[in-house]
Amino acid sequence: MPPEPLTPERILEATEDVLRRFGPAKATVVDVARALGVSHGSVYRHFGSKAALREAVTDRWLDQSHAELSAVADSEGPAAPRLRAWLTALFAAKRRKAGDDPELFATYMVLAGENSGTVERHIATMIGQIAGIVESGVRRGEFAPVADPSATARAVWDATNRFHDPAYAAEWGQEGIEAAFGTVCDLVLRGLSTSP
Amino acid sequence: MPPEPLTPERILEATEDVLRRFGPAKATVVDVARALGVSHGSVYRHFGSKAALREAVTDRWLDQSHAELSAVADSEGPAAPRLRAWLTALFAAKRRKAGDDPELFATYMVLAGENSGTVERHIATMIGQIAGIVESGVRRGEFAPVADPSATARAVWDATNRFHDPAYAAEWGQEGIEAAFGTVCDLVLRGLSTSP
Repeated sequence: MPPEPLTPERILEATEDVLRRFGPAKATVVDVARALGVSHGSVYRHFGSKAALREAVTDRWLDQSHAELSAVADSEGPAAPRLRAWLTALFAAKRRKAGDDPELFATYMVLAGENSGTVERHIATMIGQIAGIVESGVRRGEFAPVADPSATARAVWDATNRFHDPAYAAEWGQEGIEAAFGTVCDLVLRGLSTSP
Repeated sequence: MPPEPLTPERILEATEDVLRRFGPAKATVVDVARALGVSHGSVYRHFGSKAALREAVTDRWLDQSHAELSAVADSEGPAAPRLRAWLTALFAAKRRKAGDDPELFATYMVLAGENSGTVERHIATMIGQIAGIVESGVRRGEFAPVADPSATARAVWDATNRFHDPAYAAEWGQEGIEAAFGTVCDLVLRGLSTSP
């Protein structure tokens, strides 16, 4: 059986495994190459440096929920329930990541701290999806006209950050967090609406 | 000249000085006593343990803006501008603390982490002040009736946390932060209002 071809995706999967096993401080490119049974030169042909590899794996991790959220953002129908569904899906995805594998989550928090540009691009993508829902709500006459949909979308992002910013991950398992999330969503949706 | 009497307030001021000089890891009750020119027994007569002293100094620090905010909360007139003024005063007080003396701010972040009960009581006081403004807005017919003013106040607190939670202190000097704050306030106030 010929060996599987060495794709960027296989390298990133192996990198996540190595990070999980050795932690972000100790994981090296040599460890990744060893886990794949290839030379470290083969890894460097895909990712030019250890920093580039760490950035790519961070990007992949942040992107994991993009597709699901983007499907919600682009779905048909009224904007208010769509925005609520989007915020609910985001909160669920974040809680899953933080709760299913807290050590890997902590590892990615370290990586996110090292790759602030990647995190900012991720946040810009998220805010872009909210802006799309806001604009469609305004077009449909559900939401009041806004001067700057991006600024309003950023305000929605900021107003809901207790339910997506990893800084609050410790609170996501607390009793009453679902109710608190619902009350903030109600407030935000009323704030956007033409007819509260 | 007789020595000044040893009051709790003098001990707390000296404790803050000692924390500033030695940092939270190294500061001891003996350092505080030495700074005041008294025995450590005299300090223990006011604060039964090092932990009690650290909790009291944290409490004092968190309380510093309560009086100012409570004056805004209890003032007369329309509720919407009052809530905006309250949130603006809170943001200004937090920025001042973080910006004027970043090392002391970092020290108090360590102390806050040790004294989560004190922090929770502080947050409950803040949310109580917001709830008072919300209830007065509902009574005045400015704000839509709410089922649970405390839950709504907590949502206002959560929705504005980018502008008061120390976790975001690094962003408070960024360009555009005032505009972002204004947009979140607009969204929250529209969300409460009967007539957006």
